[in-house]
Amino acid sequence: MYKETNIRSIVKGISWRVVATTTTIIIVYLFFGRLDLAIAAGLIETVLKVALYWGHEKIWQKIHWGKKRIEPFNLWFTGLPLSGKTTIADKVYTELEKLHIPIERIDSKDIRELVPNIGYSREDRNRHMLRIAHLIKTLQNNSISTVASFVSPYRESRKAIREMVKNNIVVYVKADIETCKARDYKGVYEKAMNGELQNFSGVNDIYEEPQHAEIIVDTDKMSADEAAQVIISYVKKHYVK
Amino acid sequence: MYKETNIRSIVKGISWRVVATTTTIIIVYLFFGRLDLAIAAGLIETVLKVALYWGHEKIWQKIHWGKKRIEPFNLWFTGLPLSGKTTIADKVYTELEKLHIPIERIDSKDIRELVPNIGYSREDRNRHMLRIAHLIKTLQNNSISTVASFVSPYRESRKAIREMVKNNIVVYVKADIETCKARDYKGVYEKAMNGELQNFSGVNDIYEEPQHAEIIVDTDKMSADEAAQVIISYVKKHYVK
Repeated sequence: MYKETNIRSIVKGISWRVVATTTTIIIVYLFFGRLDLAIAAGLIETVLKVALYWGHEKIWQKIHWGKKRIEPFNLWFTGLPLSGKTTIADKVYTELEKLHIPIERIDSKDIRELVPNIGYSREDRNRHMLRIAHLIKTLQNNSISTVASFVSPYRESRKAIREMVKNNIVVYVKADIETCKARDYKGVYEKAMNGELQNFSGVNDIYEEPQHAEIIVDTDKMSADEAAQVIISYVKKHYVK
Repeated sequence: MYKETNIRSIVKGISWRVVATTTTIIIVYLFFGRLDLAIAAGLIETVLKVALYWGHEKIWQKIHWGKKRIEPFNLWFTGLPLSGKTTIADKVYTELEKLHIPIERIDSKDIRELVPNIGYSREDRNRHMLRIAHLIKTLQNNSISTVASFVSPYRESRKAIREMVKNNIVVYVKADIETCKARDYKGVYEKAMNGELQNFSGVNDIYEEPQHAEIIVDTDKMSADEAAQVIISYVKKHYVK
């Protein structure tokens, strides 16, 4: 973040005044051919304009019309492993960044890589969700919106997010489990089916479908780009009007 | 966060131009008594000034003098339980907020209340620190500084913070363990000494003193207000010049 120093603001203000007043003096001189009067007019104008500009700002500070409050929101992508959450969330994030709103991307993978052994049991997952909710809430305190993608298989953990976070938009990335298995480039479904991976949502642990998702994108019926467009339209309509 | 809509900016710009041009016309008319020429001069001036203002802004965009970069920093308060970390950190935070820099307060207590059973074993604490480091780093990505207070008894966890976080300022809140015990309004030292609390830093778990603290405040020798002043001076000198 850059901040303008006071001295820069003052020098910049003076430099503009010099340009502006000189222009006025030259124009008046060219019109009327009296340099002394042109200078006098220019100087009076300078004094007056500084005062008028101040007054103009004061009046506008009282006018609230045309100011819009940007409320931080949280796009919460939930869905089976390999349903396409990260891909779509990345696209949405890239598009939203272009709107010049402060926004942050949070992905399950990044945090689990950083903190190994978070665990996948119901209790571990729920504690994890509380910490993620805390992270999002802290960002929202600072007007920062979030694009978060987590399997978040349990209704109770998604509920904890909804309760702690403002303007929560649940995006259910729906995909047939067979589609997810077909996309299994990581081999995780295979491992889960062999029993090598425990607590794997959709195989040996439950994925509870969201019942109150604000947005449902069916990746069996639309492309990732189409899904991203649906989500961006929703955000633009409700939050970044 | 409030954002000015485009239409507000345009209307405000026009309203200022009307005020400014009218002023010019009136002054010129009063000086020279020719309304037609005064209006012509005013209109020419308007067109010229819009162009000049644009040029003036462009030139200033190229001048980097007088811009200062505000780097996000992290004040990391470490010390024995009840050494005074939270009290001093709260005071520092309140003072720093007045400088109008984006800043966030993170306290151990708040997170442990939200996520019970984080645990106090060495492994639990170190994982906890990684998540806190992630939180601070995410805030720093958004130019937000932090005032964090955690017992953080192990060198290795403080090292993890230092490695992940920019501009880390370790504040060692030093207090004699007897002083801490005397302040034991929560009764935690007593419980630890009775064996009711395990892994309690300073009693039945080690507190490894920081060896590279940027600031050491000895609460046996100075008041919380004095300690806060020392820290604020440091921050002002190094980060918010």
